[in-house]
Amino acid sequence: MSGPVTFWFELASTYSYPAAMRFDAEAEKRGVATIWRPFLLGPIFVARGWSTSPFNIYPDKGRYMWRDVQRICAALELPFTPPPNLPQNSLSAARVATALDAAERPAFARAMYTLQFGEGRDIADFATIEEALRRSGRDPDLTRRARDDQIKHALRQAVEEAQAQGVFGAPSFTTPDGELFWGNDRLETALDWAAAH
Amino acid sequence: MSGPVTFWFELASTYSYPAAMRFDAEAEKRGVATIWRPFLLGPIFVARGWSTSPFNIYPDKGRYMWRDVQRICAALELPFTPPPNLPQNSLSAARVATALDAAERPAFARAMYTLQFGEGRDIADFATIEEALRRSGRDPDLTRRARDDQIKHALRQAVEEAQAQGVFGAPSFTTPDGELFWGNDRLETALDWAAAH
Repeated sequence: MSGPVTFWFELASTYSYPAAMRFDAEAEKRGVATIWRPFLLGPIFVARGWSTSPFNIYPDKGRYMWRDVQRICAALELPFTPPPNLPQNSLSAARVATALDAAERPAFARAMYTLQFGEGRDIADFATIEEALRRSGRDPDLTRRARDDQIKHALRQAVEEAQAQGVFGAPSFTTPDGELFWGNDRLETALDWAAAH
Repeated sequence: MSGPVTFWFELASTYSYPAAMRFDAEAEKRGVATIWRPFLLGPIFVARGWSTSPFNIYPDKGRYMWRDVQRICAALELPFTPPPNLPQNSLSAARVATALDAAERPAFARAMYTLQFGEGRDIADFATIEEALRRSGRDPDLTRRARDDQIKHALRQAVEEAQAQGVFGAPSFTTPDGELFWGNDRLETALDWAAAH
């Protein structure tokens, strides 16, 4: 096994949806180990002076993004029903993802993305998070961990670690030799890099 | 032949360099006709409230972009020597590209990109534009067309046409059925789309 490649995912990020659905399968093809790290883009955007998603600040980019993600999902045969508003508040969901064991995160994250962008559900709603836990074979009662101070702290630390590695968007991929790759478009490139270096 | 796919290129755009070097070859593989349209991102960025490149406004994104373009050029075996500053002033070069016949634009544009990002030359310098004309088999004296009112007007119209089609970045690709694709990463997707629709 080479790598590992760290997959930095923000649960409210549109392009992280197709990336999450493909990441482990593409890594396995290449014999590359993976690490799934939930983080939040909000604090990184705020540091940049943005109070909301750039897709809201720049409506032309927002319109393009939805059409682009729709085309990507169609090509991958992924269900696509956008949620009522963007960005969704991903704080509680990210805390629950942080509370899970590393091995449980991928299935939970994929369930969250499918609920949000495949079925149009609100991820700030605890019922959605509980449903994702259920679908990924976990106890829905785990949502209580979202209020755990230790978890809140661990998530803040993940944001700092992401920033320290230059992460400014999602999804992002980092390699042990310090390379950063940004976007669903760079998923294969990041894995190929890790396999070759 | 299907298409045509219109390739909207901004001569100061970093990601347009690898796109310009690949576009015609990838189109030919798929039997898709191409149209090369020079335009300017400056007026589009100004309309968005930006006075310079987003890669300057957001330094983390700028650092990432240079490394990303370097990796892309390495993978394509394209020479890579960044120019002294970003963005270069592409106004005169874009006017000369506008003045050329459609069939002459690709070779001129490729020469301009190679001079700028492969050899680190300043594209606002008329000597660079003359060299690109020479390398693409044209008369270097054509730079005088950059002062032609008709050409200035045609370039302004190209910017308006690009905006009307939703273009907000470069490179962009548009198809006869109204699809917009943004970025060097979408070059193949745009051509595949045109070949299939």
